[in-house]
Amino acid sequence: MTYCLGMQLKAGLVMMADTRTNAGVDNFSSFKKLHLLADGLDRQIFACTAGSLSMSQSVISLLQEGLPASDGAELSRSLGEATSMFRAAQLVGEAVQVANETVGAALKRIHLESAVSLLLGGRVRGGPLSLFLVYNAGNFIECTAEVPFLQIGETKYGRPILDRGLDWETPLHEAVKVGLLSFDSTMQSNLGVARPIDLVVMPRAKGTPVISRRIEAGDIYFNDLSERWGRYLGEATRNIPNPPWMRGGEGEKGGEGV
Amino acid sequence: MTYCLGMQLKAGLVMMADTRTNAGVDNFSSFKKLHLLADGLDRQIFACTAGSLSMSQSVISLLQEGLPASDGAELSRSLGEATSMFRAAQLVGEAVQVANETVGAALKRIHLESAVSLLLGGRVRGGPLSLFLVYNAGNFIECTAEVPFLQIGETKYGRPILDRGLDWETPLHEAVKVGLLSFDSTMQSNLGVARPIDLVVMPRAKGTPVISRRIEAGDIYFNDLSERWGRYLGEATRNIPNPPWMRGGEGEKGGEGV
Repeated sequence: MTYCLGMQLKAGLVMMADTRTNAGVDNFSSFKKLHLLADGLDRQIFACTAGSLSMSQSVISLLQEGLPASDGAELSRSLGEATSMFRAAQLVGEAVQVANETVGAALKRIHLESAVSLLLGGRVRGGPLSLFLVYNAGNFIECTAEVPFLQIGETKYGRPILDRGLDWETPLHEAVKVGLLSFDSTMQSNLGVARPIDLVVMPRAKGTPVISRRIEAGDIYFNDLSERWGRYLGEATRNIPNPPWMRGGEGEKGGEGV
Repeated sequence: MTYCLGMQLKAGLVMMADTRTNAGVDNFSSFKKLHLLADGLDRQIFACTAGSLSMSQSVISLLQEGLPASDGAELSRSLGEATSMFRAAQLVGEAVQVANETVGAALKRIHLESAVSLLLGGRVRGGPLSLFLVYNAGNFIECTAEVPFLQIGETKYGRPILDRGLDWETPLHEAVKVGLLSFDSTMQSNLGVARPIDLVVMPRAKGTPVISRRIEAGDIYFNDLSERWGRYLGEATRNIPNPPWMRGGEGEKGGEGV
């Protein structure tokens, strides 16, 4: 399993991915799922992947090596030369289709279902910071301000905190905390998502450096965040008044008649 | 979609179910999913259902009318005469199998997948309060003190708060709050789960009355709980220190270069 999260906010872009892969509960491993796909003076493009690992790695390699030229193609075939983030998302979609036609078809012949999806984020030339979700068919959607995040993989456990805690105006350092809490909730409920967590933060303001970070399994800041969150949630629950149709202490003696 | 939650604690049993059913987004309706299946001096048995509505209703009706006698059966065939909660769970499992053989098979012939699962809770004679999850095959598991809750339906959004907030020692009024928050998280993220929410609370202490309640769409207590929870989560997030590798205010000017 995998969990990847992208947030596109007024202040910038945040992308996060866990690193756990597993084929059954007795075959766990750790692979990087957050990749820097293009890095230059005029562009930085990152991608997170979810799905079959062999499919994901094929897509990333196809993009790094450049897609095969199509007959009479005039447009550039590599992310290093894509003229916009939209064009980059088209190329990623095409790479997903190629992987499906090769690796995916081979897996299908032995009756294994496979799929891959990606979050694609970054900036090209003077264009805006953008975030896309590329589906397994190669089609894609773009993140907008109304719901300023996109998720792939094991998305449900970590979603309520995003629905509650995130909007377009959320400052980057708060968004990073909300994102880490979303991962924490997911990891508490699903063994298939685990640290290390990779993350990048791209401030929208030009000239502000990109922050790139790996949160290791024993990361002290993350442990403290998780412990505080558990404590605050307990306090918050206790601070909510009891239901008026239920006295506190009702049936609290317990244990009788067990 | 549906969300049902059962909690078995030292202090007693809590069962909750939403009431929304839908066949596509343009065919929403409201049906009761929490049923009192047996009520007498020596027993109270409740069930929550998730899955295909026609399957769920068949199972409940089969149980209310009594299962057909099997050849040479000596054991009683109705929940009103079941000698234990374990025996009650067996009967419910059998009703699920009968519904699969009739309704389920008819749906399969027109290529519709159907399934039903139930939470079964209550007390029979002098036996302990018990909580079971009956699967679509008719097999079942019993809730134990290590993880004192069981869920069916749309389970993931509402699970993190349970993993964090609930243990065997949680008092009933706190458990009800945690349960309502679990529903609130689910409803915020999935349109297919909605109020009214039905709930029953059975204190373990004998002689303490069962609380039965419907939380309507406009319930003031629930609205206040939801609003406070959102506020507390925001405060909790802000109270967590910023990542040491990220200054607060970094890139906060935002909006430039969009």
